[in-house]
Amino acid sequence: MKKSLLLSCLLVTSGSVLASADAHWGYAGEHGPEHWAQLTPENHACSGANQSPVNLTGFIEADLTPIEFNYQAGGTEILNNGHTVQVNYKKGSSINIDGQQFELLQAHFHAPSENHIKGKSYPLEAHLVHADKDSNLAVVAVMFEVAQENATLASAWAQMPEHAGDKYQLNTLLNIDGLLPENRDYYRFNGSLTTPPCSEGVRWLVLKESVAVSAAQVKAFENVLTGPNNRPIQATNSRVILK
Amino acid sequence: MKKSLLLSCLLVTSGSVLASADAHWGYAGEHGPEHWAQLTPENHACSGANQSPVNLTGFIEADLTPIEFNYQAGGTEILNNGHTVQVNYKKGSSINIDGQQFELLQAHFHAPSENHIKGKSYPLEAHLVHADKDSNLAVVAVMFEVAQENATLASAWAQMPEHAGDKYQLNTLLNIDGLLPENRDYYRFNGSLTTPPCSEGVRWLVLKESVAVSAAQVKAFENVLTGPNNRPIQATNSRVILK
Repeated sequence: MKKSLLLSCLLVTSGSVLASADAHWGYAGEHGPEHWAQLTPENHACSGANQSPVNLTGFIEADLTPIEFNYQAGGTEILNNGHTVQVNYKKGSSINIDGQQFELLQAHFHAPSENHIKGKSYPLEAHLVHADKDSNLAVVAVMFEVAQENATLASAWAQMPEHAGDKYQLNTLLNIDGLLPENRDYYRFNGSLTTPPCSEGVRWLVLKESVAVSAAQVKAFENVLTGPNNRPIQATNSRVILK
Repeated sequence: MKKSLLLSCLLVTSGSVLASADAHWGYAGEHGPEHWAQLTPENHACSGANQSPVNLTGFIEADLTPIEFNYQAGGTEILNNGHTVQVNYKKGSSINIDGQQFELLQAHFHAPSENHIKGKSYPLEAHLVHADKDSNLAVVAVMFEVAQENATLASAWAQMPEHAGDKYQLNTLLNIDGLLPENRDYYRFNGSLTTPPCSEGVRWLVLKESVAVSAAQVKAFENVLTGPNNRPIQATNSRVILK
């Protein structure tokens, strides 16, 4: 069931694992997060015990091996799907974790952040979405704090898709490597997609060090959405958060 | 959803969190494990991404705090529910993990073992089932290896319920503490009930050291079942197994 959900999600959305082809969900009102599980039978995972995002706290110290990043300039297009702004990536960029290679598919953004770290919310969070050959997903999350302008975001935002449905070929291939902090130490937990169908079985790798973004860049992102696009914090339940 | 499933399971089974009131599931044929998710809508978790049992391998070293065991002699009755033999416990015995207290509800058995450790199956596995005040479950698993007779099991098996539906008051309160190995180091993972409705959000704590059981004691247990009562190994997916 999980595999088929993930796969159908991957297939129907032409490169977006985030937005379902069914856009009848949102972040407020009768189609808001508290109703996602009931909107369609495919969404039953949204009420599961292992959902994202979470408040990262109550850590267990663990011997986490470094994530091996192999990113090239490969962001080919930028789009607004009504839920987020997303940069789709061409093949050739990946991470290695648990001895498995996960190909980078796309990066997208949430304002404010979906995950919290020790109770703290950030103004912006990037989700770098990867899949292995069996469509298992791994998401690298990067937190932003307001400071100087972010050059990598500036390059993408120069072609900001202002309306839902807008999609542009990027003038220059974007290198998401530019969004990574210098230190790639991370927290790890087991979670889900943060949007319907909320499929579980997703490796979450949240980088500990945040990166800079200007207040104007956060505003430019918020301006093309209809409102905040952060799903509320989900219960950790029996999960461990590793640091 | 998960909470209500766990709770209804706790309520309808009079102390057994394992056996559903609906006994129309089994370990073979058309009601076997590969069909559990489809038997009733309540069983959809059986096809989830975070199911038990698993093969414990690919460990991550972690700083696991010792489980605090506070067990009294409190096993009051022994029953055969058609799926397993189970000893129900009265209030007053608990473990402490993650700073939370989990009350011991019951212990039951699987032959052969459900979980595997580094690919190895054991002839018998005990599941000591605990719940916190919010009905979150924690299961301590103990593996048995064939050697000398186990005195604690001998005490319980003296009143073996031979047929499904049999239930006896124990002549002497059983102390499950007698089933624990000397060394209580454990593996940890996040899983589910191993029987319908397969509810997720269960803390699994698998003791590393096995304990002794005689071949005759294993046989005595197998004789009162219709066949092996181990659910097949489930995919680990994005989970970590801590050691």
